[in-house]
Amino acid sequence: MSENKIITPRKLSGFMELLPEKQVIFDYYMDRIKKVFLDNSFLPLDTPILEYSEILLAKSGGEVDKEVYRMQKGENDICMRYDLTVPLARFISMEKDKLTFPFKRFQIGKVFRGEKPQKGRFRELYQCDADIVGQDNLPLPADAECIRLIFEVFKAIEIEDILVQISNRNILFGLCEALGYQDKTSQILIILDKIHKIGKENTLATLVDLGVKEKDAQKLIDITTLSGKFDKALEKIEDICSNQIYQQGISELKELNTYLKAYNLDENKYQLDLSIIRGHNYYTGTVFETIMPSHSEFGAICAGGRYDNLTSYFSTSQMQGVGISVGLTRLFDLLDKNDLLTKNVKNNLKVEIIPLGNTISECLKMEAYLKENGIVCQTNYTSSSFKSKMKQANKIGVPYVIIIGEEEVEKQTFAFKDMVTGNQQMLSKAQICEQLAKI
Amino acid sequence: MSENKIITPRKLSGFMELLPEKQVIFDYYMDRIKKVFLDNSFLPLDTPILEYSEILLAKSGGEVDKEVYRMQKGENDICMRYDLTVPLARFISMEKDKLTFPFKRFQIGKVFRGEKPQKGRFRELYQCDADIVGQDNLPLPADAECIRLIFEVFKAIEIEDILVQISNRNILFGLCEALGYQDKTSQILIILDKIHKIGKENTLATLVDLGVKEKDAQKLIDITTLSGKFDKALEKIEDICSNQIYQQGISELKELNTYLKAYNLDENKYQLDLSIIRGHNYYTGTVFETIMPSHSEFGAICAGGRYDNLTSYFSTSQMQGVGISVGLTRLFDLLDKNDLLTKNVKNNLKVEIIPLGNTISECLKMEAYLKENGIVCQTNYTSSSFKSKMKQANKIGVPYVIIIGEEEVEKQTFAFKDMVTGNQQMLSKAQICEQLAKI
Repeated sequence: MSENKIITPRKLSGFMELLPEKQVIFDYYMDRIKKVFLDNSFLPLDTPILEYSEILLAKSGGEVDKEVYRMQKGENDICMRYDLTVPLARFISMEKDKLTFPFKRFQIGKVFRGEKPQKGRFRELYQCDADIVGQDNLPLPADAECIRLIFEVFKAIEIEDILVQISNRNILFGLCEALGYQDKTSQILIILDKIHKIGKENTLATLVDLGVKEKDAQKLIDITTLSGKFDKALEKIEDICSNQIYQQGISELKELNTYLKAYNLDENKYQLDLSIIRGHNYYTGTVFETIMPSHSEFGAICAGGRYDNLTSYFSTSQMQGVGISVGLTRLFDLLDKNDLLTKNVKNNLKVEIIPLGNTISECLKMEAYLKENGIVCQTNYTSSSFKSKMKQANKIGVPYVIIIGEEEVEKQTFAFKDMVTGNQQMLSKAQICEQLAKI
Repeated sequence: MSENKIITPRKLSGFMELLPEKQVIFDYYMDRIKKVFLDNSFLPLDTPILEYSEILLAKSGGEVDKEVYRMQKGENDICMRYDLTVPLARFISMEKDKLTFPFKRFQIGKVFRGEKPQKGRFRELYQCDADIVGQDNLPLPADAECIRLIFEVFKAIEIEDILVQISNRNILFGLCEALGYQDKTSQILIILDKIHKIGKENTLATLVDLGVKEKDAQKLIDITTLSGKFDKALEKIEDICSNQIYQQGISELKELNTYLKAYNLDENKYQLDLSIIRGHNYYTGTVFETIMPSHSEFGAICAGGRYDNLTSYFSTSQMQGVGISVGLTRLFDLLDKNDLLTKNVKNNLKVEIIPLGNTISECLKMEAYLKENGIVCQTNYTSSSFKSKMKQANKIGVPYVIIIGEEEVEKQTFAFKDMVTGNQQMLSKAQICEQLAKI
């Protein structure tokens, strides 16, 4: 067994792997987000990581194909999921008769994107998604519910500094149509989506290159760069264009505004921002992104919106939905690198039990007794010296130590040491338990 | 967008996908197991699902290769993990300087096995693993700690009917050596491992075919089929063989027995059972399996043991470890099919808020108010009729409904209906909150 050749241990790049101290914090975030989803009566779903390629790539177009982890296994052409939305669409299409609508589901899980590794990009990443899907028509309060959910999620993970930027794609759809560019809408949106990256001038030039008249391009840019509090911003744009789709966008935004007010959300933390476009083609109405204003360089830490054709690839029924997605792996990485991780995660180990002499069995008895009383503890049964056992207790930061020597076993009183104050008392099992229960 | 051809939605076979009502129960089990691991001061780890094939297949031998999901991505030959043990070995080998030993880690995650789908077999399955790894020598109390952990895990998920069957591989290693078959030990163990499946007679014949003398084969079978309470069973076998390895096995079992007693575990729920061998080559000492005696047809619902060469493929250091593994997907499936799932999971949705007339905004205000007070509720904002909204509330089993009509908005008192008794009161927001807090 020991004649193996040694293989240098290594991990694929672009895959996050945390040391336990950090993993505890990651899990804290994940648990808190999960609790928010549950407390808002979203139901859990856990679709497989592997799916038929035909299913996962049904709607992707060319770009996803290159990124996706795909393989042949037996007779099956299969892929690892690259998001949680397509699996949701597949699931609902298959199981719709067994579900209650609006179907509110959340899924927290890993997705896989084999793109070139870049700074801050991961090939394996956790997404925390929550979606509301209607059997057919889904009214606008659902969009407000999702935006409220964003507030709850970030409050739960102690990120109070957020700004939810909201738009409605019908505004630009309508404007493009009114200006006569309805057959170029997708391309125009893709260009406008990058306006903050490439600047107004480059955007203008690119639009003109596409065949948009300069005057029209300017109009599109003006509206795209408009943002501010809902009431005021809506006032500014409502009369710009009488196109029906445009006006539908206005009316949806107005209605949404009413619901956001009903929810009593902090008006400093959300605004209308028409530069929010979202790359995905499937968004049809409300779209939103969330940023941390003090760290706008993080970009969107949460995003989502409304789609009206979720299951169109798998069924003839038109199901409307709206959802949010938090890319937790990327967010965690950003918080970590900027020293912004929560300090709220405490070591749950309360007591280390240390034998002095041949008292292991007595230590295990103490351990069982304390654990029965709900106290998180462990016995250091290693063969290291008493001194290094005490050192280790100190190193792992355990607040109390119980030392069990042979003499103590006879007397059934044990040394109970406070590792912070250094204070040490001789106590019975019951007394130790009492002391610890108080803390 | 709607000119797509429709693709029939389908899921790969051998992949569990639960409806939300069942997923809630699955998550309950997973959360409870996680809590047990944390309360016993195991630290979380979350290694990537993808690894270099060279790493994952380092120790596997031929059999795993066929089952593994493997692909070429760019320049990399990669695999999806098929267990959580090899990734642990890789992780510890890479990060050992940053860890405190004994390193107690748990990992709950999906593993992938592309074997032929059979009844009760899954290709994607959750494993819940907890391991204790020493920097070098790891004393035997660690084995007892793992066995105690098994008790805690199953208590937490309300499976009280368990039997932990414990053995030590040195017993059969030593006996094989003493009988002169040291070069056939692995093959003999593989045969003996199947004794309950194929029966004593077939085992005898197979051993004789291998070249074991009938008398010796009988001796091996006699000891393998021995089981019972520790004290008695140990008495029966301690003098059978004076071989040094055999006697080491005896002495380890005796020491383990002392610790299990110190832990005060229910002696009706564990026993010595020498038919427990475990297929994996890497087990070196203590091995154990857990069954449900009233459903022995489930087979092992938890297994584990001690390995003394965890990192031997990735490093020259010899690290000893001991661990347990619960195959949660398979266990859940068995419990489900036998109607044994916990009934302890309650719907956390307490209140459905239903508009009567044009009162959506008022409903959302109520929703925000109740949620601020920690009450799980939702508004039914769909365009369905009032009657079908009430029907749906009934269907999803929500215990209370608040009906908000236009008149009620003016008076600021609302109809609060108990869906079980049918009792309905007119209450203010604060009164509703008070009532719900009481429940």
